[in-house]
Formats: sequence, C-alpha cells, structure tokens
Amino acid sequence: MKITIAQINPIIGDIEGNFIKIKDAILKALSDKSDIVVFSELSLLGYPPFDLLKNNIIKNKIEEGVKRILQENFPINILLGAPYFEDNRIYNSIYWIKENKIIKRIDKFYFSNDPIGQGNYFSYGTPDFLEIDNKKIGLFIGDDFIFSSDHSNYKDYLKTSDLILIISSSFYYFGKRQERIEKISQLAKGIEKEVIYVNQVGGNGELIFEGGSLAISKKGELLFEGEIFKEDIKTIDLKNLYPTSSKGEDISFLYDGLVLGVRDFIKKSGFQKAVIGLSGGIDSALVACIAREALGEENVLGVSLPSIYTSRESIEDAEKLSKNLGIEFRIIPISDIFYSYLKELNPSGNPIMDVAEENLQSRIRGNLLMFISNREEYILLATGNRSEALTGYCTLYGDTAGALEVIGDIYKTTVYELANYVNKNNEIIPQNILAKAPSAELRPGQKDEDSLPPYSILDPILKAYVDENKSLEEIVQMGYKREIVKTVIEKVERSEYKRRQIPPVLRIRSKNPLKERIFPLVYKII
Amino acid sequence: MKITIAQINPIIGDIEGNFIKIKDAILKALSDKSDIVVFSELSLLGYPPFDLLKNNIIKNKIEEGVKRILQENFPINILLGAPYFEDNRIYNSIYWIKENKIIKRIDKFYFSNDPIGQGNYFSYGTPDFLEIDNKKIGLFIGDDFIFSSDHSNYKDYLKTSDLILIISSSFYYFGKRQERIEKISQLAKGIEKEVIYVNQVGGNGELIFEGGSLAISKKGELLFEGEIFKEDIKTIDLKNLYPTSSKGEDISFLYDGLVLGVRDFIKKSGFQKAVIGLSGGIDSALVACIAREALGEENVLGVSLPSIYTSRESIEDAEKLSKNLGIEFRIIPISDIFYSYLKELNPSGNPIMDVAEENLQSRIRGNLLMFISNREEYILLATGNRSEALTGYCTLYGDTAGALEVIGDIYKTTVYELANYVNKNNEIIPQNILAKAPSAELRPGQKDEDSLPPYSILDPILKAYVDENKSLEEIVQMGYKREIVKTVIEKVERSEYKRRQIPPVLRIRSKNPLKERIFPLVYKII
Repeated sequence: MKITIAQINPIIGDIEGNFIKIKDAILKALSDKSDIVVFSELSLLGYPPFDLLKNNIIKNKIEEGVKRILQENFPINILLGAPYFEDNRIYNSIYWIKENKIIKRIDKFYFSNDPIGQGNYFSYGTPDFLEIDNKKIGLFIGDDFIFSSDHSNYKDYLKTSDLILIISSSFYYFGKRQERIEKISQLAKGIEKEVIYVNQVGGNGELIFEGGSLAISKKGELLFEGEIFKEDIKTIDLKNLYPTSSKGEDISFLYDGLVLGVRDFIKKSGFQKAVIGLSGGIDSALVACIAREALGEENVLGVSLPSIYTSRESIEDAEKLSKNLGIEFRIIPISDIFYSYLKELNPSGNPIMDVAEENLQSRIRGNLLMFISNREEYILLATGNRSEALTGYCTLYGDTAGALEVIGDIYKTTVYELANYVNKNNEIIPQNILAKAPSAELRPGQKDEDSLPPYSILDPILKAYVDENKSLEEIVQMGYKREIVKTVIEKVERSEYKRRQIPPVLRIRSKNPLKERIFPLVYKII
Repeated sequence: MKITIAQINPIIGDIEGNFIKIKDAILKALSDKSDIVVFSELSLLGYPPFDLLKNNIIKNKIEEGVKRILQENFPINILLGAPYFEDNRIYNSIYWIKENKIIKRIDKFYFSNDPIGQGNYFSYGTPDFLEIDNKKIGLFIGDDFIFSSDHSNYKDYLKTSDLILIISSSFYYFGKRQERIEKISQLAKGIEKEVIYVNQVGGNGELIFEGGSLAISKKGELLFEGEIFKEDIKTIDLKNLYPTSSKGEDISFLYDGLVLGVRDFIKKSGFQKAVIGLSGGIDSALVACIAREALGEENVLGVSLPSIYTSRESIEDAEKLSKNLGIEFRIIPISDIFYSYLKELNPSGNPIMDVAEENLQSRIRGNLLMFISNREEYILLATGNRSEALTGYCTLYGDTAGALEVIGDIYKTTVYELANYVNKNNEIIPQNILAKAPSAELRPGQKDEDSLPPYSILDPILKAYVDENKSLEEIVQMGYKREIVKTVIEKVERSEYKRRQIPPVLRIRSKNPLKERIFPLVYKII
C-alpha cells in the first residue's frame, strides 16, 4: 500500500489558497500511483483557527471547499482534515473522500487540556476505523493522545487496528520533536503496529509548525522523516522502508524555525519587506540575519537611530553588519527631535535625565521606525529577547514597537549561541558586536549589568522561576545569592503590565506557548 | 439562624491584606451574634488568580493564612474560600472553620467551560453538605451551576438540602445581573428551598465584580440584595426578611462599574493619580469624568496636546471640561516636535502628509503623556472606545498608549449615553463636546465619518457581526447596505494585529470578557 504524506503549509482561513495546495498534492499522489493521500489536521482551514470556527463566512467556505474536492472526482483515497458543522456543534474531522463521495467522516474523539483550547470549540466524536486495501486503519486526530500518559481506554481499538494513523497539526517548541518521536516509537513498539504521523508545516502567527511527518516501524524504529520547516509531499510504501535516524534538534533547528516564522508571518500578512532598528547590539543584529534569510537581502532595511549617547562604534557596527548582509542601511539621528521634546516638557530649567528621558529616546526611535513602516510598507520587527521581556527591561512603545517580537522567546544566552551559529563559516555579525558588553545606550556609559545581573546568572534564575515554577528557596539552593534571586523575582512580578502590550512573540523555545504565563493584570505577591 | 454575608474586595495575591479584611468581617459577624460568616469564592487569595495558583510563594502564603485564622480561634462558623494544595493537585475549596479547627473542606465539584479556564487549574471535588444548626446546607462554589441548563445530576443533592449556599466570584457584564437573579430565583422556586448567593466585589485588572450578594426565598422572591460595586458585610436572618425588588441595571450601573474598575486598577497597582490626554472630544471627556469620580479631582490631570490641525474650540472645550471637573489642566503643543521629525524624515522636499504623518502626531502625543506618567507617577488612561478598537480606527503607541483602556468595551453610541448620564443634573461635559461631529483632528477638516459609517449604523453592524456572529448576508437582511457591511467586516478582520497590542480593556459590556475574540494573528478570510 502506497501512502502519500501531504505536509502542506496552509494559510489560516484561506480556503481557496489551501484548496490549490491540496489539489496539487492529490495530483502528485495520483502521478505516484499512491493508494491514499493524507493531509494534516484541519488542513483545508489551516490550524489553529480559534474563533474563526464560529464565523459563518468560514463555515460556508469550508462546505464549498469540500464540495469542490468531491466535484473533482479524484480516483484516490483522500484523508482531508476540515471542521464539520452540524447544527450548533463543530467537529474536528477527517473526511475520507474517494471520487465524488465522502466514504466516512471520523471526528476527533480524544482531547487533552491543550493550550489552544480545542475543547472550547469542538464536540467529541467516537473512534472508528478506515478500511482501505483490506487494512483496518486506526485514526487519531491531533497528538493529544501521544502526549497523554494513559492509553488504557483505547487498548482494544489499538489492538484491532492494522496500522495507526496520527493526523496532527502540532506546533513546535525546542525539545518537543525528540519527545514526540520517542512517544510515537513507544506507542508503536507497545502495540507492535506501524504508525504514520502527518504534521502541518509553516508559521501561523506566533506559532511555528515544523512538519517532519513520520513513519515508525512495529519495532519503534524511524522509517521515514519528512522535511523539517518545509512543505513536503512524499509517497512512501512501508514495506520498502528501512530504519534511519532523525535529524535531531540543534541550534540550526532553532534558527531555521525562526526564519520560517518570520517569512510566513510577513508573507501571509500580505507584506514583503521588513525594517529593523539596528542599535549596534547583538539582538537587533541577530534579527536582521533572520529577516535577511527569510525575505532576501533586497527586502530588509536596517536603520541606525543614534542619540547623543550612541557611540560611534555602535553606528559603525550596524553599518558593517548591513554591508555583510547586503541590506539597505539608513541613519536617522534622534538628538534634535529629543531636544524638541525637552523644550516643550521643560520650558525652563534643565532636564532631569532619568528614566522618563531614557524611555523618551527609545519611543522616538519607535515612532521613526513606525513612520517608515507606515510610509513604505515595511513590517517593523521588534528585537527584544526573553530575558528582557521577563524582567521588563524594555520600553513600551519604544524598543517593543513592532508587529512581531522575533526573538522574544529566546533567552539572551541563547541569542549569543544563535549569533555564533550565524557566524559559523564567516563573520556576518561583526565580532565587535559579539564581544562588547550589552547596553541600551540611553545614558552615558550605561550597561545592562547596571540594572540586571549578568545574563549567565539571570537566565538560569528566570528559567527556574518562570519555566520550572521553582520557589525563591529552591533557586537559592541551586547556588544563587538570595538577594539576586529576590531582585529577579520582583522584576518579573512587577513587569506583567508590559508583557500585556508587547507585540506577539514567535514561540519556539517555550513549552506552553499560548498560555505560558497568564497572570492577573493587577496583583501583589512581593 | 443568623448568616453574615461578607462581600469583600480582595487584592489578588495579597494574602496579608485580604486576611485583615476577613478578620474585620468576622469581628463584625461576632458582634452581630451571627451563626455563620460566609466569604466569596477564593476570597483569601482574590479572584481570578490564574497562574499565581502554580506559584510556590502563593501556596505557602495561603497555607499560612489559613493557619492564622485557626490560631485566632474565632467562636463562629466561618466559610472561607481558598485553594487547597495537595501533592500535584489544586482544589477550589471552601474551608468550614470553627474555633481552631477545620471542620470540613468542600472542593468545587461542578465546572463549566468558563472563560477563566478553571478546568486548567483545579481538580474536581465531590458534593458534600455542611451541617450547621441542625440544617443541611448544600454548597455550590461558583455560579457555573446556575448558568448551566442541566441540573439533573444534582437532583437528589438539591432535594436533601435544607438551604442552598452559592459561594461565587463572578465578574460582571451588562445584562448578567438580571440573568443571574432570574436563574437563582428559578432554581429556588424549582426546588422550593431558600438560596443564599455570596459574590466578590471590586475591580481586579480588566474584570469588575459587582458584589450584590443575594438571598432568595423558597418562592423565588428576592429577600436581600447586597450593595452593588461596594464592600458590604451584612448579617441577615432569613425568617425576618420580606420580598423586595432588585436595583436593576440602568446606565448608572454601567457608569458606577467603570468608576470602580478605574479606582481599583489604579489603587491596587499602588498608584494614586491618572493622566488623560484631552482632545476636546467625547471619549476623553467621559474618561476624565470617570477618573475624577474614581480618584478625586486632586488626582486627575488633563492634558491638551494641540497640533496645527487642532481647532481652538477643542482646546477650549478641554479646558472648560477640566474647570468643570476641578482637575489640573495643561497644554503642550506638538507642532514643533512634529516638524523636528519631518526635518529628519524629509530632509529635502515637502512632507506627503498621509497616514504616516497622521499616526506620527498621535504617537508624539502618546510619548508626551508617557513622559508625564514616567516622571510624575501618573497612570496614563487610554480613551479609545469599542467601535474604534474593532474597526482599527486608532493609532498603536499613539492614542492607544496607556495602562488601561477605560471605555474600550463601550460602543461609541453608549459613550454618548454615558456622557448624557454624567450631565443629568448639570453640564459637566461642555454641550459643545456632545454636539460636534467626532474627529481625530489629524488632518484639515477630518471627521470620523470620512473613514467610518455614522456610529448609529456602525455600532449595530459591529454588534451583529462581532457580538452575535451574524454573517454578512444576515446583516444585510437586517436592513444595512451590503457595501457598508462589507467595509465594516473588512475593517474588523484587518485590524486584529492592533487589538493584540492595545492596553488591557475594562470589561463591562461584553458577555465573554477574556476570550471574546480570539483570532489567529495572521489569517485571510476577506
């Protein structure tokens, strides 16, 4: 039995566009003389659709889309993911289509308490089999089932199946890929059945789907792995496949994911170009590299926005980086604008030059970049990292201005790793940017370490407190000074209001992307 | 049997502060010679706590807080809402405490699929009774049960109870109060038992809790209604109460809710003062009135930020409003700052003066107000309304800058109703502000109606599309022109990215506050 795994990159809501991709994949499957073509979860609609599911326009389009596929009368078994609307209920379904008939519809029957909140939208289906080519195929929609610890309710279902098919759209976070392969291998081995796993690929808003569809043998061996972060339509025949090894998740994996995230965010939004404020620091340098990789050098603009506190070195570093990347570079000084504000704000007397003036400079930069964005149709990419966002070391409407925080989910220490990866073959990011001490350059001689512990201490404390929910006491026992830990926790707790207004963050490192940290807006614990 | 209803206003996470309020209420109950004192759901912690539940600091504080109450050895039955932590589980519990003992703990056993997502945090308990004074008291935590349509599983439980107690922390939206009273009356009547309903009061972040605790007779009559939008500790004896009528939800109700929301947002954040940009328009005028009511005239600052396009009338209207309110008023012109930007952005040639320059002016205003906020410790209140937020008729980092959107949940047509309510006795908001055509004054002669349909048409279309999920076709059938409906839908669909970055919105009008509109960030349906 030949199976075509159709790992496509849909745009959420764009039924017409997704239909074209689906049709192309079916034609490829037909030319491969395949028996079945399998698409990812909700592929006709794109995943995750959230409240679009409740939108009548979408309902009609989905129903038309399914009709169009039937009308095409394709002589092949098609397993297509799409919602099914019935009275007041919606199901997350797989339509088994052959020629002009829906042979069967199987609705998702197993939900975990997932962060996308599927339970808020979908009703429960009941398990059923697909009988194709004298084989009983067991079908799970989503990878909720794989990641759950208790499979006992489905023992008989699994046992009766000749083959297990998992049709999923499961977003990526660092470490999840390996975990997923292990869980599916265990499942396959435990029931001694082959398992095929089909996943969505592409960036959809903040979420990134890595693709990497799988075929696993009865012994739990990897037989096939689809392309990572790329569309991939491949026809496989399980009996002709041999054990292979997975590509593994290294720093390049993370980088490629961010590149795809930026590319799809901008292109799916209908834009081509990105503008980035280049401070001469490492964060904006890394974002520029990612954007160039995602969009091409002709579509990226770097802007240096020097103030009286900006060193000549910073401007030169930004310029050198732009030259290395082959991107356009502009310089717009902010000093005169800054003084025009101070004149209105302090008509007499000297400016105080504290945090109000520091933030003002950052916000002037935000305004200038947004002006370019509005006038010349560039998407402004914000360049803050996760260490800054968690400690509130950023200026709302200033350096946080933009449509997307590209590295907002990446700790500063990982930013350095990514920058070194970019430079692996030749110096793209000028060495000086990597070597110098991080600084916001908002006052004379300012360094990040005046306000924050060194990142080599800060990041592990943040990971322990935020990602692992460790208490102050437990973190102190890890070997950090109580005073420092306390200061970091205070910074996190007092900056929730900033995180409510920063741009959407490409989620790639953290485990629980959408609900990672839901805190009351106003609360008091410290 | 005397019951003290303790309708308190807790700060989320502030166990020490909440403990003091709880102790005061217990002392009041003791002096009233009450038999039981009943607090709202999770009152020791404050509601909703979200991920604070997973925080070890909170866990320890809650356990200490409960211990402190036991140590006080109060000679009265106390029903106190607090989480119970057990291994890896958390329960939403009522502790029945008397003297130095926890007589019983009842854990929440009925959850709806609520927008706060309680199911993500809490494990299920089992129904149980409180036996006080020879009475079997049935206990429900939260009003999930009241708002569910199916009570059949709890028929026996309800029948066996002598009295039903509903301990809740249920946020307010316009219309919910009446619905709640009706549902509880139906319940009481249906089972022929008295029902007592205890609710939290206060603003907690975006959410507002109205209080208004209730006692309902066996016949479904209202016997007691606690204060609305105020703390209220009252001792009642059901056998001494007579039917009365509810206060009802009129426009004053909405206004009082917004006032409480602003007051608690600012005070619970540890601030005293608010600054508002006064454009001379109705939105900022209304927000200034609400802020003055919430904080007192000495704590509100109005700032006029005129550009070359600002009419003299607008400045005068803003000044007159400030005088009427007795608040401080400043004028900071933005023209020179605007020109200093244009000089850097267009070193040669004339500025184009399109949306880029319009947004720039709005953002200069945002910067100036944030400067005052940073320098003088004012909270900046944003003044956008719901009609603007839904159509994207606003400038990110400009007029949307601020810590809180006070009227972001209120349609423009309701803004007029609220303004007229403010002026019911004398002219607080100058008549000219109410009479003139709405304008952003970002270019010569600009009117809102150049970009949007009249609000009397826009608002019903938005309500139909967003609040009621009606399709284009259905809205056209309501009697609106297809072209206009299509334009409005397009505006809504294309401005999702703006709503991702606007400040938190005080939720008071809409039914589903936290998840009202969860859309993919990037999608395509129009």
